[in-house]
Amino acid sequence: MKILVIGAVAAGTSAAAKARRNDEKAEIKIFDMDSEISYSSCGLPYFIGTEVESRELLVPRDARFFKKKYNVDVYTRHEVLEINAQEKLIVVKNIDTEEIFNEAYDKLIIATGARSVQPGIEGISKPNVFSLRNVGSAEKIRNFIIGKKPKNAVIVGSGFIGLELVENFMARGINVTVVEMADHVMASLDKDIAVYLEDYLREQGVTLILNDSVTGLEGDVSASKVVLKSGKTVDTDFVIISVGVKPNVELAKNAGIELGVTGAIKVNSKMQTSIEDIYTCGDCAESYSLITGKSVYRPLGSTANKTGRIAGDQITGGTLEFRGILGTGIFKVLDMTVAQTGLSEKEAIKEGYDVEVCHNIKPDKPEYYHGKEMVIKAVADRKTGRLLGAQIVGKSGVDKRIDIFVTAISFGAKAEDLFHLDLAYAPPFSTTKDPVAYTGMILDNAINRSRKLITAAALKERLENGEDITVIDSRSALQYEQAHIEGAINLPHDRIRQDMGTLGKDKTVVTYCNKGVTGNAAQNILINNGFKEVYNLSGGHSNYKKNGLL
Amino acid sequence: MKILVIGAVAAGTSAAAKARRNDEKAEIKIFDMDSEISYSSCGLPYFIGTEVESRELLVPRDARFFKKKYNVDVYTRHEVLEINAQEKLIVVKNIDTEEIFNEAYDKLIIATGARSVQPGIEGISKPNVFSLRNVGSAEKIRNFIIGKKPKNAVIVGSGFIGLELVENFMARGINVTVVEMADHVMASLDKDIAVYLEDYLREQGVTLILNDSVTGLEGDVSASKVVLKSGKTVDTDFVIISVGVKPNVELAKNAGIELGVTGAIKVNSKMQTSIEDIYTCGDCAESYSLITGKSVYRPLGSTANKTGRIAGDQITGGTLEFRGILGTGIFKVLDMTVAQTGLSEKEAIKEGYDVEVCHNIKPDKPEYYHGKEMVIKAVADRKTGRLLGAQIVGKSGVDKRIDIFVTAISFGAKAEDLFHLDLAYAPPFSTTKDPVAYTGMILDNAINRSRKLITAAALKERLENGEDITVIDSRSALQYEQAHIEGAINLPHDRIRQDMGTLGKDKTVVTYCNKGVTGNAAQNILINNGFKEVYNLSGGHSNYKKNGLL
Repeated sequence: MKILVIGAVAAGTSAAAKARRNDEKAEIKIFDMDSEISYSSCGLPYFIGTEVESRELLVPRDARFFKKKYNVDVYTRHEVLEINAQEKLIVVKNIDTEEIFNEAYDKLIIATGARSVQPGIEGISKPNVFSLRNVGSAEKIRNFIIGKKPKNAVIVGSGFIGLELVENFMARGINVTVVEMADHVMASLDKDIAVYLEDYLREQGVTLILNDSVTGLEGDVSASKVVLKSGKTVDTDFVIISVGVKPNVELAKNAGIELGVTGAIKVNSKMQTSIEDIYTCGDCAESYSLITGKSVYRPLGSTANKTGRIAGDQITGGTLEFRGILGTGIFKVLDMTVAQTGLSEKEAIKEGYDVEVCHNIKPDKPEYYHGKEMVIKAVADRKTGRLLGAQIVGKSGVDKRIDIFVTAISFGAKAEDLFHLDLAYAPPFSTTKDPVAYTGMILDNAINRSRKLITAAALKERLENGEDITVIDSRSALQYEQAHIEGAINLPHDRIRQDMGTLGKDKTVVTYCNKGVTGNAAQNILINNGFKEVYNLSGGHSNYKKNGLL
Repeated sequence: MKILVIGAVAAGTSAAAKARRNDEKAEIKIFDMDSEISYSSCGLPYFIGTEVESRELLVPRDARFFKKKYNVDVYTRHEVLEINAQEKLIVVKNIDTEEIFNEAYDKLIIATGARSVQPGIEGISKPNVFSLRNVGSAEKIRNFIIGKKPKNAVIVGSGFIGLELVENFMARGINVTVVEMADHVMASLDKDIAVYLEDYLREQGVTLILNDSVTGLEGDVSASKVVLKSGKTVDTDFVIISVGVKPNVELAKNAGIELGVTGAIKVNSKMQTSIEDIYTCGDCAESYSLITGKSVYRPLGSTANKTGRIAGDQITGGTLEFRGILGTGIFKVLDMTVAQTGLSEKEAIKEGYDVEVCHNIKPDKPEYYHGKEMVIKAVADRKTGRLLGAQIVGKSGVDKRIDIFVTAISFGAKAEDLFHLDLAYAPPFSTTKDPVAYTGMILDNAINRSRKLITAAALKERLENGEDITVIDSRSALQYEQAHIEGAINLPHDRIRQDMGTLGKDKTVVTYCNKGVTGNAAQNILINNGFKEVYNLSGGHSNYKKNGLL
């Protein structure tokens, strides 16, 4: 039994290690073009910043380690030129000696990963224009920064890597401008959550340019001016291109292996490709959504690790099968954490769900224990009550809440299930009712108990369409005077029981307070007094204002 | 419709608020003996320390707030003397005016809470002997500390409150001695996890006295000497008695309401007592285990809040039902967090499960991102693979992991499910394979893939019984020389493939390394080479040593 693996980063090495754990006798070889193996791609931004001090911390293992621990032979700086599926062999080139040789396999695992998308921008090959993908490219950026002490950076693209680089550049005293083509940062988020991150970035001194793209990188030798489609220009000392990655599928494609709709290698739950005895895993493989069952491409270290292990198990007779992903993602920029899992509102709508959406703004801990506010946007299916996804922004405890959602959604949780979870409570960790439980209550009340919600965007749209809606501002007169939704009536909460008589019970009513709790209380009172159709504004005045709708 | 509630802390006020949200017309009154309402009991230790600066932060709401927001009348300093279920009325005494009056109800909610157990110790009523239960008692302790500037405290009992007080006393410069009757702190933990906390407490300068109890508190006026059963004495400036709480059930019992096996008020999932129209919630009510279905008594703020809401919903025609608890608990002492959910090993064995147990020692984040080690002990049912419980100690990220377990166990997760969770990964938050996923892999391998585990205690016992077991230390020669399990053979991992020939394949073998990973690798190699019965030592040498078994 001879197992060959192409690629020695997260997926390839996981596959090889798992294969060895299952099978002591197999011959296992890994080939990789690069010099480093089994390193943490996700740690690279922190190596460029000041958080990770040495390269060795990120690349703790080498070929010798793999030989000793797993009896696996790792060949670095070896490029695989061709897969010959008929003959069951691969053609390999030793990059240093230029020797080319054939290597036969019984089982082959393709773990060729992904590479940065390089858009066709004039000047992109200038020496101070970088992309971050592997240890080598991280070192290039790091050495540039340490050597040239640049003051200004332009980051093109605002995905995980782009935004993680923001904080790491700032840690080195560099001013950062982010250029994003879409109308909000981090495309996978809904816009009404992205705004929280955008405001925070601006507060921290980051220049954000949205709805714009780079058309040229000008300068004599180096790029010193970034020219945008809008005609705007930005002076800079260097440029990072991080507009996404695409799977390295050329080897597979040339071998006749089927690609999926996303362009990544098509794969079943056993990580088998369309050709017998050829498996794939990691960033070159397609994945699928645990919720919709549809193919998706979301290359991530954790998934690479998982699919690698599954491939390694399968080729050695194991029964592990891939169950799909929720598309969970998390990142931190300075003090702000942003996380999401499952479907966003826009994705859920696109998938045809009748969505219920809530924006729950709550502290992660009691205020007396220095709790910090987080915003949880959660999406559920009105028909079944099933949770579809969550997005969270905040400064503390965001990672915990997203993982509770991940776990709940993985088991098919309904909104109403969240309240019942016996989550761990003590003041240093949570509030008596955890924000996740609270989110479930709000959604359950909306779906099953006619405490309907309306999003800020939907209210704005309906008001602009001239619909006859009574909007009630339940906050104090002072708060109302400072700012309120146009046309809203001020009816402070402690007066609603006396004063609601003047309102028409048959008209559509929207209540709101600052964040949603008192608005919901007002909604309850009106419904219990016979009002026909009452919505509470999701996320209240605070979220409406944040979204620039006032 | 007239609703009366006895008790105005977490459960009673939650019930009243929920009732009002559902029903605008009902008359709702709450009676409480105390002066404060709706406060955070769980925050009291931090008010005694320096974390919470003012009383108002803990007690943000008063009767006026409830009247304005919920149209609920709260009567503080009103003692309920009797429940007359036949007449459907309660007898109330105004503590200040001594006026006694009857109040009729349609629905009654008993939320009388719990009180500290006061053991029959000589000297317990001395003025510097305290228990912590409500705002008044917290203020007494706080004022004593600020006024008398004591240097030494003895805390009797090592449950949540006792251990939370440790850090808060230390924050005020007080030396702490903890006296615990059992052989380990925090009775609900398994001993082999409690040892991590005990070592930490000792490192921080806390004096722990286990297996001992207080027989007297000596001193002229104040208690200045604590006398223990062992004959030992401890000089002190004040004493805290925190040996547990018991439910306040006298009112209910006198009214003929049935109590449960735990001594708390018997209740069904609708929070109904044995008498029609009388409901109960919070710390006076019995709960039941989500896993075993059996009655348990675990009074906690989060459960009080939950059961209060359910009672309030039910009495106003709602359909919310209680689903039971996992007995989740969490607390922090200085930098150390300890959390548990579900069944401990000892509980699971007592319940008759054939338990698989693992001790997974892993950093919460990559080491290059300052990860700190946590120990996860998890218990699963060998027959079904179902997760039964988890206990975690560590310095960072413990609350997240316990809540993932809580959520998974609530949905009936099997050990094998944890690996598949698409948990949020980025270096500031987790490792590529989260410690929870890893725990699932270890248990799954043990239950379904014959990678058996043995606990430190079980190995020690079998060795002491003289069983013929080959124990293999897979660490380096140097580590082996420093300390190893008696009788173990040193077979460093990089030599096992060559040297295993000398070992008998039919003998029982136990492998171990420092924490478990390499021990598992060695186990794999032996099993794949035909060894019949190979165990990996759960938690490795590190856990064996921590438990004092070397």
